[in-house]
Amino acid sequence: MSTDTAPAAVEESAIALAERMADAAAEITRRHFRGDFAVEGKEDRSPVTIADREAEMALRTVLGDHRPDDGVIGEEFGVERGDARDVWVLDPIDGTRAFITGKPTFGTLIALVRDGRPVLGVIDQPIVGDRWVGAAGHPTRHNGRPVTTRTCGNFAAAYASTTGPHLFASDSDLAAFERVADRVRDTVYGMDCYAYGLLASGHLDLVIESGLKIHDFAALVPVVEGAGGAMRDWTGRPLTAESSGRVLALGDPSLLDATLALLGEA
Amino acid sequence: MSTDTAPAAVEESAIALAERMADAAAEITRRHFRGDFAVEGKEDRSPVTIADREAEMALRTVLGDHRPDDGVIGEEFGVERGDARDVWVLDPIDGTRAFITGKPTFGTLIALVRDGRPVLGVIDQPIVGDRWVGAAGHPTRHNGRPVTTRTCGNFAAAYASTTGPHLFASDSDLAAFERVADRVRDTVYGMDCYAYGLLASGHLDLVIESGLKIHDFAALVPVVEGAGGAMRDWTGRPLTAESSGRVLALGDPSLLDATLALLGEA
Repeated sequence: MSTDTAPAAVEESAIALAERMADAAAEITRRHFRGDFAVEGKEDRSPVTIADREAEMALRTVLGDHRPDDGVIGEEFGVERGDARDVWVLDPIDGTRAFITGKPTFGTLIALVRDGRPVLGVIDQPIVGDRWVGAAGHPTRHNGRPVTTRTCGNFAAAYASTTGPHLFASDSDLAAFERVADRVRDTVYGMDCYAYGLLASGHLDLVIESGLKIHDFAALVPVVEGAGGAMRDWTGRPLTAESSGRVLALGDPSLLDATLALLGEA
Repeated sequence: MSTDTAPAAVEESAIALAERMADAAAEITRRHFRGDFAVEGKEDRSPVTIADREAEMALRTVLGDHRPDDGVIGEEFGVERGDARDVWVLDPIDGTRAFITGKPTFGTLIALVRDGRPVLGVIDQPIVGDRWVGAAGHPTRHNGRPVTTRTCGNFAAAYASTTGPHLFASDSDLAAFERVADRVRDTVYGMDCYAYGLLASGHLDLVIESGLKIHDFAALVPVVEGAGGAMRDWTGRPLTAESSGRVLALGDPSLLDATLALLGEA
């Protein structure tokens, strides 16, 4: 994902398609939520349910009906046409642990990666009814209304978030998060992608996670950046398919250097 | 709160009143949720907002209109007539940190403590629209429909929850929780009272917290126990106003001894 120039504005038809895809997945996740389904373990020991698989199939079906030549990378069903100019990156249920336990903080993530850069992202929470849409050349919208991140000049005023301490990829990653958590006003846990939407809407200031894959973070980038925030890896670089999976979201980009310094301390 | 005999069934009028109180608080929390309000720090450094105060006033107003002689213990405005036979224990917003960050997992807690025992409890999440009502002599209901906890015979199948690692009252309490977390299938974070409702509905198996006060846990007891679960302190005793604030909820009471053993290890 090169970042030397700003990407061109995303066409309205792609945004409308992403929203139709989100509607199709929402129908399925709403139907299975708090229902009676089996939980299987994947190779990486993360959980998966029939709702994950059916929702990803629904996303792929709507996409294929409208743009059959585009590429797709999905959490459950892998890569098709990964070398296309436009590749859709899908996570039907980000926060499967939340979904399994009846907690309405999971989300469906839909990203359009164009020429290697995430230019369109949807974060959809279908139980509460919260949808964030970010796209290059457009302001990020929450349920149709433009939103912006908030100003936060120092850690003492900041609210930080991460999904869970056990989800960091290593003890040293957890220790890095805790150095930030020790400095902020307060920390809240347990939100998966939902935290990035709340950051885009100005309710949270920092989200810090590690061990994320491209389907976990591609959709977050246009949402956060289109609201005035910054999404980086823990070295300050833009997120790419080759990123380490260490993700940092800031509502106020002026906190970037200080946050990177804390994360990078030995 | 003596527990030598089962309490008499709670009268329908008290249940209806508790629901009217929850409706009044919900009107206020919905109006302020994700709004523009100041966050103040209390003496114990926990946060409070105008929504906490207005919601507790609304709870007290509805209660006083119908049962002016009952006692009240509220998180924000303290004790009135604490020696009455019927004392209502109120937490207008349990999970103020969630409320502040726009996260719809906070809840309004309403308990009726009769002759020292919690005999009626409401957990109300007004944004998602989840309400659990538990009362002695009645099955626990979620949005009007009876619910039960689920069977869970061993830790390997169990889903556990706590609000956040930083909220345990001590490092040793956190270590005790982690001994359980290391044994269960998975752990989810960040739910405050909402986790106890989800446990009552059979979506979670264990909730473990410490540092809770009477207004944090009194309403949870009738909800969890009326659904077939168990609420205890970490020594296995029923929760009382004098409890240490170390709270354990189990969907399947057969896991009690094994859980207490893990919590109690040095």
